[in-house]
Amino acid sequence: MNTRTVGILIFDDVEVLDFAGPYEVFSRTRLVPGAASRRSDESAPFNVFTIARSLEPIAATGGLRVIPDFDFSTSPSIDLLVIPGGFGTRPLLDDELTLDWIRTFTESASITASVCTGALLLAQLGMLKGRKATTHWGALDSLNEIDPTIDVQRATRVVMDSLPDGLVTSAGVSSGIDMAFAMVEHLHGREVANETAHYIEYPRPRPRPGM
Amino acid sequence: MNTRTVGILIFDDVEVLDFAGPYEVFSRTRLVPGAASRRSDESAPFNVFTIARSLEPIAATGGLRVIPDFDFSTSPSIDLLVIPGGFGTRPLLDDELTLDWIRTFTESASITASVCTGALLLAQLGMLKGRKATTHWGALDSLNEIDPTIDVQRATRVVMDSLPDGLVTSAGVSSGIDMAFAMVEHLHGREVANETAHYIEYPRPRPRPGM
Repeated sequence: MNTRTVGILIFDDVEVLDFAGPYEVFSRTRLVPGAASRRSDESAPFNVFTIARSLEPIAATGGLRVIPDFDFSTSPSIDLLVIPGGFGTRPLLDDELTLDWIRTFTESASITASVCTGALLLAQLGMLKGRKATTHWGALDSLNEIDPTIDVQRATRVVMDSLPDGLVTSAGVSSGIDMAFAMVEHLHGREVANETAHYIEYPRPRPRPGM
Repeated sequence: MNTRTVGILIFDDVEVLDFAGPYEVFSRTRLVPGAASRRSDESAPFNVFTIARSLEPIAATGGLRVIPDFDFSTSPSIDLLVIPGGFGTRPLLDDELTLDWIRTFTESASITASVCTGALLLAQLGMLKGRKATTHWGALDSLNEIDPTIDVQRATRVVMDSLPDGLVTSAGVSSGIDMAFAMVEHLHGREVANETAHYIEYPRPRPRPGM
């Protein structure tokens, strides 16, 4: 089976659920329903991995230590790039190495999706210019401070308007789970998305305008 | 401030969201509301850490590599013990070292809470004898195979009936987030729990009988 690669950027002070939510959803998606299919990767449509600036362990919020699978120089090609948030995004706004890496990999990715304040990094790169986008409620104003042309969406968990251009943004933390399910649904249909939600017992919120 | 310690057991093939969900909730809870209070631990009522059989990195489902904070011999005392699930629980059912550690630490913990198939380990230890309990939908029957006296709850996300005895079980994967919020609410009130849910933008399901 042709699998898509899902690359999740991680860094010090990344919010745990920002990366772990999408990691869970993409890595547990199966095209064959049921619990047994989760015991192997046979019907797994995604190959999920983490990437960081270096191969050193990162410390997420709360201190959770995660070993990245790849660093910027060894990262394989990425079909679906996930940029999570957390307080750790602030220093990255001036980190040319990270910004360059994101810029390069968004160009080759089919979809780039931010969670929470990961959107600030996309804004910093000018990728959200004139677009509808969202972020954590505590950072909605920061989005416009970085780029006043962004049409900030304050009441939508997953903003899909720019999906035709390969860009998705989601609101705070848990919204990353909804973003991941929206991508599963976009790529593999509602049945696969809902069955995976059933597997991880996640009650997907009902779609609202913009979702 | 007196903080409670939250110890989360991790092991190979632990389900990512099983441990990352409660980790997120407990580590981001603050008694002072708002985004700014999350920048420090000043009003954090919980000190959250992970424990594993050894200090070697574990590989969670999907391959996520996490470095445990403590091993069985160095673990500090634990007020709230979280036992997550995942396919990795099956080999642990015969792992005397792990079962002994859980037995010892449940005795001193105020609350032991399982997520998903973590309940199988508590059942194996005889801790759920004659009690109401739940687990992932794919393992409900296994719970009764291990201990036929368990009153298996098939439609409840968080089973709190044995909370007076310091025991809580929750259903599959995402239900661990609800379990964590239920514990925050139990220990620090509804306002603190709901404000933390607002911070991580998690739509807590409405309480149902048993929650």
